[in-house]
Amino acid sequence: MKDGRAELICTGSELLGGKLNLYAPLFAERLAPLGFALGREQSCGDSLEEIADAVKGALKRSVLVLVCGGLGPTFDDLTRQAAAAALGLRLIYSKDCARILAFNYGLKKLPPNFKNQCLLLEGAKPLENSNGTAFGQVLRRGGKMLALLPGPRQEWEPMFANFLDSEISSAFRLPPSAQIKLRAAGLWETRAEKMLRPAMRRFPGLAFTILAGPGTVDFLISGDDSRGAVARAAAACRKLLGQALYGEGETTLAAAVGEKLKAAGKTVACAESCTGGLAAKLITDIPGSSDWFLGGAVSYSNAAKARLLGVGAATLKKYGAVSAQTAREMAAGARRAFGSDYAFSTTGIAGPGGATPGKPAGLVWFALAAPGGVKVFSRQFRGGRAQVRDGAANCVLDELRKILK
Amino acid sequence: MKDGRAELICTGSELLGGKLNLYAPLFAERLAPLGFALGREQSCGDSLEEIADAVKGALKRSVLVLVCGGLGPTFDDLTRQAAAAALGLRLIYSKDCARILAFNYGLKKLPPNFKNQCLLLEGAKPLENSNGTAFGQVLRRGGKMLALLPGPRQEWEPMFANFLDSEISSAFRLPPSAQIKLRAAGLWETRAEKMLRPAMRRFPGLAFTILAGPGTVDFLISGDDSRGAVARAAAACRKLLGQALYGEGETTLAAAVGEKLKAAGKTVACAESCTGGLAAKLITDIPGSSDWFLGGAVSYSNAAKARLLGVGAATLKKYGAVSAQTAREMAAGARRAFGSDYAFSTTGIAGPGGATPGKPAGLVWFALAAPGGVKVFSRQFRGGRAQVRDGAANCVLDELRKILK
Repeated sequence: MKDGRAELICTGSELLGGKLNLYAPLFAERLAPLGFALGREQSCGDSLEEIADAVKGALKRSVLVLVCGGLGPTFDDLTRQAAAAALGLRLIYSKDCARILAFNYGLKKLPPNFKNQCLLLEGAKPLENSNGTAFGQVLRRGGKMLALLPGPRQEWEPMFANFLDSEISSAFRLPPSAQIKLRAAGLWETRAEKMLRPAMRRFPGLAFTILAGPGTVDFLISGDDSRGAVARAAAACRKLLGQALYGEGETTLAAAVGEKLKAAGKTVACAESCTGGLAAKLITDIPGSSDWFLGGAVSYSNAAKARLLGVGAATLKKYGAVSAQTAREMAAGARRAFGSDYAFSTTGIAGPGGATPGKPAGLVWFALAAPGGVKVFSRQFRGGRAQVRDGAANCVLDELRKILK
Repeated sequence: MKDGRAELICTGSELLGGKLNLYAPLFAERLAPLGFALGREQSCGDSLEEIADAVKGALKRSVLVLVCGGLGPTFDDLTRQAAAAALGLRLIYSKDCARILAFNYGLKKLPPNFKNQCLLLEGAKPLENSNGTAFGQVLRRGGKMLALLPGPRQEWEPMFANFLDSEISSAFRLPPSAQIKLRAAGLWETRAEKMLRPAMRRFPGLAFTILAGPGTVDFLISGDDSRGAVARAAAACRKLLGQALYGEGETTLAAAVGEKLKAAGKTVACAESCTGGLAAKLITDIPGSSDWFLGGAVSYSNAAKARLLGVGAATLKKYGAVSAQTAREMAAGARRAFGSDYAFSTTGIAGPGGATPGKPAGLVWFALAAPGGVKVFSRQFRGGRAQVRDGAANCVLDELRKILK
């Protein structure tokens, strides 16, 4: 068994039906600084036998097992019972837990469904919940650790940060495993891999992962950082990526644009046709974006392009809405209408309908209006409507980023 | 072991690091009409031992095991070898597969990494890939079935639909398990549960799941539909939900608005402040929305509110940007500027910054401008910036839906 191997078990029948399980990356991120990497993730329905079987298997393979969910007060919350069955342990009613619950909720007597939440595995330590009634618990046994955590993110995240983190680090004392995420745009996944290969060869002990998004590539570098290898590999990769690197960690393209504009004391506005508000949405996702974003026009009709942005009727008639000329007049019009330093525009065929001879679905024209003039360009995107729109919004934000100082 | 129990194994080290696994709901949806439900999902890294161990465990518990990923041509694609190790079977080079690959790619001689993709488990049947080089394969053994599928969605989805679907249905012939998803808005999860309890009691043999979104609630009804129980339960739930029900399946709130507008031959426009383009984005996600959506203004600055929408300087000065009066003038201004039948507006404090005395983060004012006049209302949303914005966009789309005939 490998040192630093953890497993995650998520419970909830909804995870096997319509609901996405969002937790593996979140747990991986919290485990890395403690020297742990996830070796497997399992999703189980709300069944005692199923959860018990998953816990048993995971404890055979791994020194640290985290179970998330199934600690609530209702009939389908079975994680405590399942863990007890898996380990052949009793559940013990904790008077301390009962006292804390009664105090926190101003109750003289606990209702029956609260009592279930005061059951601890023999020898386990309770973990207090600052956002709910379900206690977590952590059990050390034979050099291994089993932790039970409540399912809602707003409950397990503070519990992990405030209590479990120190339990794990004091029990195992592993060298930290660091992770650095570099984010690049305007290049293909295969091109990114080729560019970064020299760095990957220089650091064979680290793990490298490439994740492609719509017009973006994330590059994850992770591994034992006790000698600073992750930081040195990241420095090498930054150099290789050059201008394609737009940020690190959770920085978005829109945030990278905002940083540059804020530093220069400049503002931007936009005029969107095929992206239909998506670029403005990505910009206004950023808290404080009103400092540098003045607004946008979603000109989904020709009348709106003419009335709000001053696109000429002759331009629309002669070249059509999806054209270099219309893109140029849209960007210039947005810059004028909002009184911004910069403005960008998008106009294209998002699909699946709307293609005409010479203008296939996926074709998008862009313009960037700057104090020095207007730059116009086009791209042909592949995929469905969502891919075309996501790719177009990222493309224009990246081109804007590149012309900003 | 239960009839109709399937398990899914997803391979790829990135699934245990930074990448979300999106596949369980997609597979669950494809399996339901075949009478199968997922009993467990496992995510494994790219390790032969790990995948082999997961396959072994899954085949012990389930009659149908699907492995997705790890069939590509590179060093870390190990699913074939792992399945062979798990079952104690040899891998056999298939000349038929080689011929098909050579023909499809116009090659006289297959390169070495293509050859790996022509290896089949002893006794397995290949599944052709219409979007890539990796064959899938399906093996029947002792009343059970193991299927290996390529990882990319655009490869396994057509393979499932064109080949695997009929393999499963002819091997098992189970009664279909149907699923109906009802979508409601403008009510809390707990309220939805209470409303629907009578239907849940009437159909104890079915599974009911409630999934809360930002201002929306999805209600999944699933189970054995051989006697039409799922359809009858859905009919009962539709009645109980009344006007809160906005759609079914993958229908979004924006699509529900669009259906009503299209039927009435009417149009809409919008003016967004705190939602910053998100409402327009949700609308323009719908193919063909240009038939009924004329456009929007993202008025992130006071100057934009005044210039594009004609909001009075006196209004902004006296009541502020986040006020009933400004919301009213924004909606009326959008209706005028775009020449639409209806228009809506949002102006609020998305947070985390921007709160003032009497105007906390999460407060949003809305207006709906219709041919008969303007309706103004406000809501206080909880949560972070994303929750406030998502909640506000869904809220205004839902209120618009309700005033439309």
